[in-house]
Amino acid sequence: MKENISRRSFLGFGAAAAVAAGAGLAGCAPQAPQAEADLATTGATADIEWNKETDVVVVGFGGAGSAAAIEAARAGAQVVLLEELSNPGGSTVACGGFIMMGGTKLQEQFGLKDDTENFYNYLVAAAGENANKDAIRVLADKSPELYDWCVECGMDFASGNVDTEHHLGGYNAGFSLGYSGNEQAREFAKVAMPVPRGHMPQPSSSGADIFAALSSTVEAEGVEVMTEAPGRRLITDESGRVIGIIAETKDGEVAIKARKGVVLTAGGFGNNDEMLNAYYPYTNRRGPQITAAGNENGSGILMGQAIGADTHGMGCFQIGTTVSTLGDAAAHCIIVDANGHRIVAEDEYNAYVGKATIQAPTSDCYLIIEKPYTEEVELGQRFGEPLGEVGSIEEAAQLTGVNVDVLKSTVDFYNVSAAQGEDREFGKAAKYLTALEKAPFVVYYAGSDTMYTASCGGLKIDTDAHVIDLEGNVIPGLYAAGRNAGTIYGWYMGSGSSMADVLTFGRIAGQNVAAEEGIA
Amino acid sequence: MKENISRRSFLGFGAAAAVAAGAGLAGCAPQAPQAEADLATTGATADIEWNKETDVVVVGFGGAGSAAAIEAARAGAQVVLLEELSNPGGSTVACGGFIMMGGTKLQEQFGLKDDTENFYNYLVAAAGENANKDAIRVLADKSPELYDWCVECGMDFASGNVDTEHHLGGYNAGFSLGYSGNEQAREFAKVAMPVPRGHMPQPSSSGADIFAALSSTVEAEGVEVMTEAPGRRLITDESGRVIGIIAETKDGEVAIKARKGVVLTAGGFGNNDEMLNAYYPYTNRRGPQITAAGNENGSGILMGQAIGADTHGMGCFQIGTTVSTLGDAAAHCIIVDANGHRIVAEDEYNAYVGKATIQAPTSDCYLIIEKPYTEEVELGQRFGEPLGEVGSIEEAAQLTGVNVDVLKSTVDFYNVSAAQGEDREFGKAAKYLTALEKAPFVVYYAGSDTMYTASCGGLKIDTDAHVIDLEGNVIPGLYAAGRNAGTIYGWYMGSGSSMADVLTFGRIAGQNVAAEEGIA
Repeated sequence: MKENISRRSFLGFGAAAAVAAGAGLAGCAPQAPQAEADLATTGATADIEWNKETDVVVVGFGGAGSAAAIEAARAGAQVVLLEELSNPGGSTVACGGFIMMGGTKLQEQFGLKDDTENFYNYLVAAAGENANKDAIRVLADKSPELYDWCVECGMDFASGNVDTEHHLGGYNAGFSLGYSGNEQAREFAKVAMPVPRGHMPQPSSSGADIFAALSSTVEAEGVEVMTEAPGRRLITDESGRVIGIIAETKDGEVAIKARKGVVLTAGGFGNNDEMLNAYYPYTNRRGPQITAAGNENGSGILMGQAIGADTHGMGCFQIGTTVSTLGDAAAHCIIVDANGHRIVAEDEYNAYVGKATIQAPTSDCYLIIEKPYTEEVELGQRFGEPLGEVGSIEEAAQLTGVNVDVLKSTVDFYNVSAAQGEDREFGKAAKYLTALEKAPFVVYYAGSDTMYTASCGGLKIDTDAHVIDLEGNVIPGLYAAGRNAGTIYGWYMGSGSSMADVLTFGRIAGQNVAAEEGIA
Repeated sequence: MKENISRRSFLGFGAAAAVAAGAGLAGCAPQAPQAEADLATTGATADIEWNKETDVVVVGFGGAGSAAAIEAARAGAQVVLLEELSNPGGSTVACGGFIMMGGTKLQEQFGLKDDTENFYNYLVAAAGENANKDAIRVLADKSPELYDWCVECGMDFASGNVDTEHHLGGYNAGFSLGYSGNEQAREFAKVAMPVPRGHMPQPSSSGADIFAALSSTVEAEGVEVMTEAPGRRLITDESGRVIGIIAETKDGEVAIKARKGVVLTAGGFGNNDEMLNAYYPYTNRRGPQITAAGNENGSGILMGQAIGADTHGMGCFQIGTTVSTLGDAAAHCIIVDANGHRIVAEDEYNAYVGKATIQAPTSDCYLIIEKPYTEEVELGQRFGEPLGEVGSIEEAAQLTGVNVDVLKSTVDFYNVSAAQGEDREFGKAAKYLTALEKAPFVVYYAGSDTMYTASCGGLKIDTDAHVIDLEGNVIPGLYAAGRNAGTIYGWYMGSGSSMADVLTFGRIAGQNVAAEEGIA
């Protein structure tokens, strides 16, 4: 029934003889095709008036760009690092401070048993059937080495503590290792032994600590940083090799020759509404984007696409609606959909609660919780003002429009589970499984409007971080990493999984572009 | 928190003065960039050795290609219609025979009240928040006219009957109008008055009847058809205008000049595994592709992308797992997920049952039904061999691995609903709502492996069927329709919604390409 045809094989090239039209091209066509002129420029290298020359241009000074620039510079390449904004950092400086790594010295120091295979198994399970297993294998295998590299860049994990319990609400300063994903959730614990893998540098266990180490290493390695200088379009030579880039500066556009190549690390497309409309797979309302220090305008992806790059995982988004970032008390709630069914273990990681919410019928969901818990945790941070306070489950049904019989049945069943100490539906941890029986109950809207969205897809790369074109061929001289690359997804795997991807493939891109023979 | 940046505005062009690199391009760069050479060719029109010349080339002889070719030819254009296979028809000839139209003369003849606004409201609700409302508006508004056009092309709706009841199992020959989507489902009936809109031509109420009328009209209009002649790559001139196409024939590649333009209607990408991996949004297993007469290899989309075209809705797929195509008896089942919850009204349209299935936790679902119903309908057609026959719900839980308490609670609640005559959870029609109480029960696996998948996304077009580039500009001389275009989705709206889209925008593409001034 199913005939698998790769893009290459369906096109059937190679077998074909000299091309009629191609062979007939004899005249002089010096201009770039107009349709692409704004996103790409083509010309012979000798004919371009270069304003600047270097070995490597890295576009975007966040985590991936830092890793690429550091590795390229350490390999002896001259590196220019472009940043669109006045302050660098991108999503890295604004992130939660986790780098998800497995089989590290820090885990060993804390007496925790983990290895790259166990880490791999978690990531593959978390990413699901669409997992890019080749990329995940590289990420997992290089994880112990990445930890050492982070330490070498100046990240301090040694002075923090480990939290071997699962707690909601994130970690304060002083913790350098803790659970950061869905490791302990029922379905994941079946395939990979749960272990804390969220590595957080000190003193503040934050993205700022991660980026401080990276940016000081960038400086130490002699990378030339240009801020307020966004990459605008790639320049290719007659053969299609990327030979430079146009950057926009306060003094106008400058053409920078990149003898060895260009690395695109300019972030995701969470703030580009047209790209979201093109790729976001759900029919439901989208909540706000994750606030990042960068622009998240998709510019690097668009520049790559304009010279024929393929994409990967563009339909993959981290969609988070969560009690897990708020604190333990929040997980004593139930979250029900518009039909009155529970949808998820309420203590699961953001992205899994978000997935369950966006995929629920109409994705209008409601959080119901006994009032005393709301005094221990600020649910309004995520869910805004409550819809109301009610004296019974019947009143909660009335307030939300959920069928009262279904909601009562759901709560009754949940309460029996609580009495038995086992969440028979979703496997929520017993410590959060308390009966919903003492009014008043507080009811929040917890549907798709309350979720944040972050793009995971990007340009298709191979495990060497080469950008791949629509034919499956490497585009010479072009690399991508971070959220400019569609890498390990599948689905979002937990806090710190993006940073692990960003740093692993940023490093690979930097190492490989530096090793290019390059152009004269 | 959210800063919306369109692709155009973020790039900030227009304001910029002459481009350093662009202005510096003085030499002779006659060859197409290598990275795109296989999917696109650029050259001055005078320099290309054309093997053939015409006004319009339409790529793909299915429903959309037929509509485009007919309209272009009727407007006086000389038209060449390329088809990859020896037999034309594409997905149209293999489809279920429905064209979803609202406000038509046939509805009026049968005394059914509908109008373009009511049709629009159904489509927007069905497509969801991501709906391309502009395109849906065009489709709905042109629907009465499309019906007349279909009749004029020779489709016979007059000799059939209407079925004003909702029945599962599709329609046999003799029915020319019936329900074909989710019109009567609870959430949809709230926003649009349910009415049959699935128009089926006679004598056989099939896709073959639709395509027979189209292909004989194509012939009558003097369109030149080349079979076994796939389009391989677009040819653009120095300005980026599409001026022709390379087709592959038994005699080798031929360069066909298209003075007015090229219309891409070469079908979806359901058989292109790499494209599925790039865009399919779910982490779950994919079932088989819908069998179509065409190749569904995404070639038209790839050709467009290679010259800088944008895409739309690439994460949108029709994912069907269904009892609705099997027959009324099947809807007496319940479908539960791996946690034991019902997921959907079991009588809903394929694509909505499929959505609920793929979005269920682990997407392993099970269908449970009293045995006598299985003797009235062949469930194995869709679900294969049953997992087994059981004497109780407890045994069904054991057989499937579902938690027995949850499953019993689900069935008990369902049975009370049946006794009350109202599906309090999902609103399944009362006629299918019978208690699940008399053993033996037959249990089928009804999870993602049993679902079919069809791509809905494609090249981004405007409502004139112009293909749009990554900058938001029209690519001159290039049109797309059918599944080469990402048009009305949102989500799949029901049987015949794709045919309505295919014919509406196919016609628009044909009309507009014929009206082009064109090149010499």
